[in-house]
Amino acid sequence: MAKELKNFTKRADNYSQWYNELVVKADLAEQSAVRGCMVIKPYGYAIWEKMQHTLDQMFKATGVQNAYFPLLIPKSFLCREAEHVEGFAKECAIVTHYRLKNDPDGNGVVVDPEARLEEELIVRPTSETIIWGTFKNWIHSYRDLPLLINQWANVMRWEMRTRMFLRTSEFLWQEGHCAFATPEENEARTVQMINLYADFAENYMAMPVIRGVKSANERFAGAVNTYTIEAMMQDGKALQSGTSHNLGQNFAKAFDVTFMNKENKPEYAWSDSWGVSTRLMGALIMTHSDDNGLVLPPKLAPIQVVIVPIYKNAEGLKAISERVQPIVKELLSRGISVKYDDADNKRPGFKFADYEIKGVPIRLAIGQRDLEEGTVEIMRRDTLEKETLPLEGIEDHIEKELEDIQNALFKRALENRERRTITVDSYDEFKKRIEEGVFILAHWDGTTETEEKIKEETKATIRCIPLDGDTTPGVCMVTGKPSARRVLFARSY
Amino acid sequence: MAKELKNFTKRADNYSQWYNELVVKADLAEQSAVRGCMVIKPYGYAIWEKMQHTLDQMFKATGVQNAYFPLLIPKSFLCREAEHVEGFAKECAIVTHYRLKNDPDGNGVVVDPEARLEEELIVRPTSETIIWGTFKNWIHSYRDLPLLINQWANVMRWEMRTRMFLRTSEFLWQEGHCAFATPEENEARTVQMINLYADFAENYMAMPVIRGVKSANERFAGAVNTYTIEAMMQDGKALQSGTSHNLGQNFAKAFDVTFMNKENKPEYAWSDSWGVSTRLMGALIMTHSDDNGLVLPPKLAPIQVVIVPIYKNAEGLKAISERVQPIVKELLSRGISVKYDDADNKRPGFKFADYEIKGVPIRLAIGQRDLEEGTVEIMRRDTLEKETLPLEGIEDHIEKELEDIQNALFKRALENRERRTITVDSYDEFKKRIEEGVFILAHWDGTTETEEKIKEETKATIRCIPLDGDTTPGVCMVTGKPSARRVLFARSY
Repeated sequence: MAKELKNFTKRADNYSQWYNELVVKADLAEQSAVRGCMVIKPYGYAIWEKMQHTLDQMFKATGVQNAYFPLLIPKSFLCREAEHVEGFAKECAIVTHYRLKNDPDGNGVVVDPEARLEEELIVRPTSETIIWGTFKNWIHSYRDLPLLINQWANVMRWEMRTRMFLRTSEFLWQEGHCAFATPEENEARTVQMINLYADFAENYMAMPVIRGVKSANERFAGAVNTYTIEAMMQDGKALQSGTSHNLGQNFAKAFDVTFMNKENKPEYAWSDSWGVSTRLMGALIMTHSDDNGLVLPPKLAPIQVVIVPIYKNAEGLKAISERVQPIVKELLSRGISVKYDDADNKRPGFKFADYEIKGVPIRLAIGQRDLEEGTVEIMRRDTLEKETLPLEGIEDHIEKELEDIQNALFKRALENRERRTITVDSYDEFKKRIEEGVFILAHWDGTTETEEKIKEETKATIRCIPLDGDTTPGVCMVTGKPSARRVLFARSY
Repeated sequence: MAKELKNFTKRADNYSQWYNELVVKADLAEQSAVRGCMVIKPYGYAIWEKMQHTLDQMFKATGVQNAYFPLLIPKSFLCREAEHVEGFAKECAIVTHYRLKNDPDGNGVVVDPEARLEEELIVRPTSETIIWGTFKNWIHSYRDLPLLINQWANVMRWEMRTRMFLRTSEFLWQEGHCAFATPEENEARTVQMINLYADFAENYMAMPVIRGVKSANERFAGAVNTYTIEAMMQDGKALQSGTSHNLGQNFAKAFDVTFMNKENKPEYAWSDSWGVSTRLMGALIMTHSDDNGLVLPPKLAPIQVVIVPIYKNAEGLKAISERVQPIVKELLSRGISVKYDDADNKRPGFKFADYEIKGVPIRLAIGQRDLEEGTVEIMRRDTLEKETLPLEGIEDHIEKELEDIQNALFKRALENRERRTITVDSYDEFKKRIEEGVFILAHWDGTTETEEKIKEETKATIRCIPLDGDTTPGVCMVTGKPSARRVLFARSY
């Protein structure tokens, strides 16, 4: 492991390769035998479970209930909403048959041509259509509203170029689907959920985000308005980390979902949808990790503290273990996840390297001499700083240190973003500066045409029209036409 | 609701129809627009989440880690294990294409014939093949073993006749997949997991089960041995509720997964797999529910206690609410999930009927007079018995009552099973008695031929060779040949 570490690509040399190697070396995920699909390994999945658990609690605290809808969507459902089918029908996994049979030529099994489906089924790329097909049965009166539903599920989009966690054909996510009697409540929920995502990103992932509205061009297929949170990775690129879509009455109309309003008149329901996915794993990795491996914010670390004993013989180990056990117990009772790694088939140096690459926030090492002197060596993964401290009261110190690390990671990421966020007024300067890996706040005339031109010429896209920040009008850096306010440009994942 | 309840089919009249109606009326699930697939509604999903959470904790306590493997399996993978492909390739959803395109005739979208996959992909019916294809990368030395992996996932089997929860094309489940260096450890884990399932069924679902071994004929496709837990439903039919398979070296051989053992010689790994699914929801419903609706064991009830205020005006409600709030708070602090339903758009009678059909274990009703007299009416869902008790100390009473209900449900189900389990020695008697809806312990000669004959003539199958119980040898009731011991027969779901 220590040796493998040395072969680890550095961020400065090749950021993209550094990421790919890290995902594998930190035991988070690996490529599968199925094109574009990954296997999420236990350590990676444990981080995802922590994300899931936290988000699930946050959703439920706002009244959302979980449910489950079918994996397969009839082709005709996808076609009901005109923009939606344009956006999602192009690259999808299509089930056409329901039976294999023995190959008449004796070569294993083949698709049975007689078992062809009358209507093809699509592996869900997102579930608005099947869910609104269902909501038709659930919504009759304003008394049935609001409906606040979420599902945790796998979805599939046939991506041509995939990267683990960032863009895979199959991925895990949650998708919330709400229905309301009024457009005001609907818009309020759409905004509430993007704020909830921002809260999660900043306070759990320690990842600062910019909340904003997508340009028409970047909207979800079928949405009236898409809210997004955008994070800056260490290379200055943006990563869209969560979206919340105001769907207006589009899906209610497509699936003919009306309710009797308080005036006893039929009205189409108002809806929104919102989601985050295993893509957040990629965001987490790329926000904090360094050339030595993964760096995890304590709130999402499956192991927050690891204790490694350094001993010469069984007797030595026994003495250390006896001193460590009450510490482990006390930490656990405080809700801190701790691992005492006394495995005897790996040397301490191997363990150090392994936990370092896995991003365990705090490592304690305790040897014979420490025991005699009543001390312990503590290392913070974020700074790699070591300190020798008294064993007495180490639990308090650890608890405080975990908080410090959580805060320090956020602060470091925020400083990185602020340092690399600039304001630009000329398109020439834009073209030059975008190469540096920065977020650029610039004026834009509001047209898709200009947006496309910028994208084509610079590979930068409008990440969002920020909800906060400078709203002074100006002129478009490309066309000189009026601009309502600066918008956020960046290259992105 | 109260009116609908009256139209509710009784168990004695049509058990099957009673079940189908109950699933819908208790708001657990409904048919979807996709053939054989259901929508799990929020209330049903909340019960499943409780099951998931409990099982997940139990698995992890034995060292199991969660991971995630691809939904789609290459056709060639399925074919690697000869028996496995026979068992699972026949009825499955097959992905053949990856793109839709606009219909040249203008009729929505059609499958793009140019986007045909070189090799078809199967929506996983179970994941042994893709997981053993992956384990090949994970297992090299005995030091990599044991590997204790679980995944929570959706799977799909193209069932011809489906019933909600009991048999659906898509269902949710967990599948555990372990690998060991020795056959002894492997067998021990296989047995450990069937015991874990029995523990869960009996102590959480309040559902007594018989642990046993499947006959060769009923084994999992690819297994050396299958352990099962079998429960009796109220109609005397058996429901297979969980299975644990000793796969020997079959999948290691099929995927060429060897490890260097302690003697530094290559050896195929030993494996097992084990799973329970949303089928447990069907088992739970059919074990306890009655003609008034669902009956839930408190440990799996999303709402354990509901409190309904009965009031004439806002002032009356306010007085009741003030008295109820500290009770709600105290119950929550004891970990009891309680709902105070003060919604003013439904009458108390409607609420009573609704919570009754949803199986909330304890209902409190509190009115103006109760408030004056310091009393409350409490009703147990399992017995429908009402009692008026002092408000003072009601929390202690509720806590005790929830325990009582949990135990009473198990006892009632066990008595039902014991009353309907008989020992039979002649095939004629067997044919007569099986019609009554009973479990029959009878002698069998151990051949698939006899087993098939019994199945054909009586629709009864060997549910298992019980791990516990009478092991006295005898003679087969059909052929008169020697029988090692009595085995368990029943008709089944």
